[in-house]
Amino acid sequence: MYCEETTVNELKSFYRKYPTIKFAKGEVIFQQNEVPAHVYAIKSGVVKVSNLSADGVDQLISFEIIDDIVPICWAFSKTTKALFYYQAYTDCEFYIMSKEVFEAHMANNVGFANAMLSRQVSSYVGNMLQVDALEKTRAYTKLLYTFRYLCLRYGRDIRRDLVKIYVPLTQQEIANTTGLTRETTTLELKKLREQKILSVRRKYYTVDTSKLNAQIDDEYDPGIDVSMLTKVV
Amino acid sequence: MYCEETTVNELKSFYRKYPTIKFAKGEVIFQQNEVPAHVYAIKSGVVKVSNLSADGVDQLISFEIIDDIVPICWAFSKTTKALFYYQAYTDCEFYIMSKEVFEAHMANNVGFANAMLSRQVSSYVGNMLQVDALEKTRAYTKLLYTFRYLCLRYGRDIRRDLVKIYVPLTQQEIANTTGLTRETTTLELKKLREQKILSVRRKYYTVDTSKLNAQIDDEYDPGIDVSMLTKVV
Repeated sequence: MYCEETTVNELKSFYRKYPTIKFAKGEVIFQQNEVPAHVYAIKSGVVKVSNLSADGVDQLISFEIIDDIVPICWAFSKTTKALFYYQAYTDCEFYIMSKEVFEAHMANNVGFANAMLSRQVSSYVGNMLQVDALEKTRAYTKLLYTFRYLCLRYGRDIRRDLVKIYVPLTQQEIANTTGLTRETTTLELKKLREQKILSVRRKYYTVDTSKLNAQIDDEYDPGIDVSMLTKVV
Repeated sequence: MYCEETTVNELKSFYRKYPTIKFAKGEVIFQQNEVPAHVYAIKSGVVKVSNLSADGVDQLISFEIIDDIVPICWAFSKTTKALFYYQAYTDCEFYIMSKEVFEAHMANNVGFANAMLSRQVSSYVGNMLQVDALEKTRAYTKLLYTFRYLCLRYGRDIRRDLVKIYVPLTQQEIANTTGLTRETTTLELKKLREQKILSVRRKYYTVDTSKLNAQIDDEYDPGIDVSMLTKVV
C-alpha cells in the first residue's frame, strides 16, 4: 500500500481535476506572512522555501517538488499565514484548489489521506537527515551527509548505486543549505568530485551512493527502500 | 477536523486496545540498524532519536513525544531497519502493535489516517523551524530560534505568552541540538535568562514568547495556531 506508484496515482487522480497556474523561475509564489488564497499542488518544477530576515537575507529551508503541497503549514491549518517565503526555483506549474476542497477530500478519501501521509513521512525523514547533516562539524563530513539527504529526498536511481538529484544546485545554494562559506564549499566539492563520489552537469548532481556510503562512518546502513526515493518526472 | 482534540482522540481510541511496555530512562528502545519487531506508539515519556557514529558519539536528531510513532521510518516502510538510535530520554511507556495491524488501521480508517497526517505535518513543520535555527550563524540568534522551535514542537501554553517545554533539557543537550560548544551555550543561555526570555526549573524551560518574538528580526509573524502546539499530559 505504501509503494510510490500507488501514492503518485492517488494524488494525481485527484489533482488533475483542477485548473493549473504557472510561475516563471524566480517569481514569488507566496510572501512570508501572506494569507494564501488557495492550496497549490506542484505539477512540475521545484519550489524554494526560505526564511527572509529583516535585512533581506533569505535562508534556504527546503525544496518542495512534484506532488508536494505549498504552503504546507497553512494548508494543514498549522498556521494562519505562510510560515516561509515561497519562490519558483525553476519554472513551475501548480494545480490550484480551495483549502476547503483539499480538506474535504482528505477527510473523505482514505486512499488520498494515506498517500499524503506517506509523502509527509518521507519529507519528515528527509528533514531528519538534513538536521543530521547540519549538525556535523567538519565541512567534508557535512557535505557527504548533505548529498545523502539530497539523494534520498530529491534523487532517483539512474543506475545501480548512481542517483541523480533532480534539483539544480549552484555552489552558492549548496553553501546556503549547509551553512558553509562559498570558498569552503568549492574546495570540498572539488575533493568529492576528484574521488568520483559526485559528478555535476549543468547544476544537476549525480552521486555514486556506494562510494558515498563507504565514506560515512556512522553505524547506519538503513537499507533504504526504493519508495523512499522521490520519483520526479 | 484538524483540531488537536480530534487528533488525540482518534489516535488514543485506537492505541488503547493494545498492550503496553515500559522502558526506564536511559534504556535503548531500538538500536540503529535493528529490524524492529513492533510499532510503538508513545503513551508517555520522551524518546531521544540520535545518530551514532562509529566512534560512539551520538548526535541528537529529534525528540518524539506522546502519540508519536517510533521508529517512524520503519513503521511507514521508508526503510527496512531503524534509521536512527532510539533511547528512553525519560521513563517511557508505549502501546505495542504489529506493523500489519498499524498499516491496516491506517488503510481502512480515514479519521485515523487524518489524525496521523496532522501529527506528521506538525513534526515536519517543527523540523523546518529546526533547520532554520541550525542554519543561523550567530550563537545568540541560533538559541532564540532553537527555543522558538522547541516551543512550537514540544511546548504548551501555561499562560498567555508563556510556553513550557515538556522535554527536560540539560545545557549539554541544548549544545548538542544546536551544534554550539557547551561553553558558548552556557554563556548565551545566561543572557537569555537575564533578559527574562527564558526561565528554567529542574531542566524544564519556560519561554516568554512575546519577548522571544520581539528579538527575532525576520519577516515572520506566523500566527501559529494553537493546534500547532503539541499537547503533553
